[in-house]
Amino acid sequence: MATPELCVRVDLAERGYDIEIGSGRLATSGAFVASRCQATHAVVITDTNLKSTHAAAVVASLEAAGLRVDQVVLEPGESTKSIAQADQLWRAMLEFGTDRKSIVAAVGGGVVGDLAGFIAATYARGISFVQFPTTLLAQVDSSVGGKVGVNLPGAKNMVGAFWQPHGVVIDIDALLTLPDREYRSGLAEVVKYGVILDEPFFEFLLGHVDAINARQTDVLANIVARCCQLKADVVQADEREETGIRAVLNYGHTFCHALETVTGYGTFLHGEAVAIGMLCASRLAESLGRIDATTTQRQHDLLSALHLPVAVPDLDRQQLLDAMQHDKKTVGGRLRFVLPTRIGHVELVDDVASDLARAAFDG
Amino acid sequence: MATPELCVRVDLAERGYDIEIGSGRLATSGAFVASRCQATHAVVITDTNLKSTHAAAVVASLEAAGLRVDQVVLEPGESTKSIAQADQLWRAMLEFGTDRKSIVAAVGGGVVGDLAGFIAATYARGISFVQFPTTLLAQVDSSVGGKVGVNLPGAKNMVGAFWQPHGVVIDIDALLTLPDREYRSGLAEVVKYGVILDEPFFEFLLGHVDAINARQTDVLANIVARCCQLKADVVQADEREETGIRAVLNYGHTFCHALETVTGYGTFLHGEAVAIGMLCASRLAESLGRIDATTTQRQHDLLSALHLPVAVPDLDRQQLLDAMQHDKKTVGGRLRFVLPTRIGHVELVDDVASDLARAAFDG
Repeated sequence: MATPELCVRVDLAERGYDIEIGSGRLATSGAFVASRCQATHAVVITDTNLKSTHAAAVVASLEAAGLRVDQVVLEPGESTKSIAQADQLWRAMLEFGTDRKSIVAAVGGGVVGDLAGFIAATYARGISFVQFPTTLLAQVDSSVGGKVGVNLPGAKNMVGAFWQPHGVVIDIDALLTLPDREYRSGLAEVVKYGVILDEPFFEFLLGHVDAINARQTDVLANIVARCCQLKADVVQADEREETGIRAVLNYGHTFCHALETVTGYGTFLHGEAVAIGMLCASRLAESLGRIDATTTQRQHDLLSALHLPVAVPDLDRQQLLDAMQHDKKTVGGRLRFVLPTRIGHVELVDDVASDLARAAFDG
Repeated sequence: MATPELCVRVDLAERGYDIEIGSGRLATSGAFVASRCQATHAVVITDTNLKSTHAAAVVASLEAAGLRVDQVVLEPGESTKSIAQADQLWRAMLEFGTDRKSIVAAVGGGVVGDLAGFIAATYARGISFVQFPTTLLAQVDSSVGGKVGVNLPGAKNMVGAFWQPHGVVIDIDALLTLPDREYRSGLAEVVKYGVILDEPFFEFLLGHVDAINARQTDVLANIVARCCQLKADVVQADEREETGIRAVLNYGHTFCHALETVTGYGTFLHGEAVAIGMLCASRLAESLGRIDATTTQRQHDLLSALHLPVAVPDLDRQQLLDAMQHDKKTVGGRLRFVLPTRIGHVELVDDVASDLARAAFDG
C-alpha cells in the first residue's frame, strides 16, 4: 500500500506549526523551508551516521531552494548532548555568520534534535528551527512539543528551554534503514501513547504487531501521525508543563530516567528504559490499588511482542531511588508519578512513599 | 527631600511584573519575593564587590522570609559573562538541589543580571528569577525587558534568551556607593531615553545636571522610574524584538558594540561606549541629512555636563566597521541604524552605505 501523506497541526498561542508526514520527504525539505520562512542561510546539524544519506538529501534540497548551507556533523550518542558540545556549536554558528535570517535544521534523532534546538533557542536569543527527525523515537516524541536541551553530568536534560520549531518534516522512509534496536526503542513511546491517552490505539497496535515488526510504511505513517496528534493535543493544553496536563507524557519516565542515570546513559536506549519504566510505574499503580495485574500484563505482552526489554536489570535499588529523588521533575524532594487507572488514562499521583517506589523496580 | 516609593508595571502577554523603586528596598526583598512566588529556596548570584553589603542584605531578608538560601559569588567584570562561567553555575545549581520551586535572585549590575537570568532561563528549562539591580545602568536598562545571556569570544550577548523576571526591586540607595565612573556610565543610557523617546525628559535632565551629579536620591528615583516606564512601554509593544519597535532602544549601540568588540570590552564601561556611540549615530544622521548639527550638539553638551566621554579614541576605522558588520543585529550583512529625526524621536534606517558609517566615527 502507498504511504499516505499526512499533516498534523500543532496549535500554540505564540506560534503554531505543521508536522508533515510521508515518503521521500527529506528530498523536498527545501520547498518546505522556503514556504515557511524567509531564510537565506541554513545550518544543518546532523551526526556521522547520517552525513552521507539523510543529511545529504536535506542539504541538497535546501541548496536547490537557494539557501546558503553550512553543516555540522556530530558524534552520535547521548554524550554529545553536553555543554562542551553546545559551546563548540555556538562558536561554529558565529563563524558561519549565522544571523536572524538563518535557520537551524536538525537532521537526526533525539540527541541531534535536542542539542540543535537548544542552540537555535539560545543563539542570538533565538533563531528559527526546523526538525527532520529520522528515528521513530524522535518522530513520535522529541519533534513535537518544543523541549530542547543538553545534559549535565548525572542529570539528563537539566539545561534547556521550550523552543517550538517552525516546522517538522517526517520522512517515514527513514525508518526503513534504522538499526533494529533503535527502531524498537521508538516503539516503546508509541505504546506509551496508547496507555496514557488512547485505548483504541493500544488495541490497534496489538492488532498490527506483525505489520509493525515488518516496518510496513503505510501502517507506520498512520501510527506516527496518531502519536504526533496525541502529543500535540497535550502540548497545546500545557505548553510549558505548568498545569500538570503535560505531565501525562512522563508515564514511565521517572523510573526510566533513574535507570538511565544509574547506568550512565550507556546501557539502554531511551525507549528501552521507557519500556521497563512503564512496567515499573504500572506495578506501582498496582501496589497503590489503582489497577489490577491484568492492566500491567497487557502492556507487558505488547512490549514483549515488539521485542522490547521488560525486566529491570540487576542494579542497586537504593541508588535507583536516589536518582529518582534528584530528578528535575521532583519538587521539594517529594516523589510524584504518572500512574494508569486503566489502559487509555493516567493520573498524576503525589507524595508516593519511597519504599513503594523502590519495590516497583522488582517485577 | 524624601525618596519617593514608585512602582512601574511591565505588562506582557505571558507574564507581567512589577518594578518597585525606593530607598532601603534590599532589606525588604524577602517580603517582595514571598508575595510574588511560592519559592522555598533561593540561589543568590552576586559578585565579590557586593557579597558583604547588598547581597548580604538580600540573603538576610530572604532567610528571614523562610527561604533556604544558597549563594554564588562571581568575579566582577564582563569576562564573567562566559559559557565557562555559565557551565559552573549550572553545575552549582544542581549541587544546591535547585528545582522548580527555587528562584534565582540576581544582586548586582548588568553582568550579574544577564548571567543569572540566562541560568534561570535554561536551568530545568526555566525557573523563576528576581532582579535586584544595584548599578544605575542595570536599574534603567538591563533589569527591564527580559534580555539575558552571555558573550562568545568577540561577540557580546550572542548566546541568550528572552526571559522575563518575576519582579524587580530597585534600591536607589545602592547608587550612593557606586564608583564614579560606573555611576556616570549609567547616565549615558538615561540620556538615551530622552533622545529616543522623550524630549521633556531630556530637558529635565539638562535642568537637573547639578542634582544628578550630586546623586540626589529624590531626583534619581524619579529619573529611574521614568526610564523604566519608557523602556517598559517599548518592550510591551515588541517583547522579542520582532517588529522593529524595540530596536529604538539600540540607539548608539551598533557603534557602541563595535567599540567594545575592538577594544575587547576592557577599555570602556558600557555606558561610556554608548555615549560615544550615540554621538556617532547622531553624526551619521547629520550626514544623511536627517538632522542638523544642533541636535548632535545638544546631546554632546548634556553628555559632557555629566562627565561622559564624547570622542572616539584612536582605533582603526576599518576594524570598527568590520565589527559592526558582524553585529548580531546585522541582517544579511546590511548595515542598519537607529537614527534621530529630532530630540525625542528616532527611526530605523536600513542599508546605510558603509563609507558613511565609517566616517561617523570621526567627530
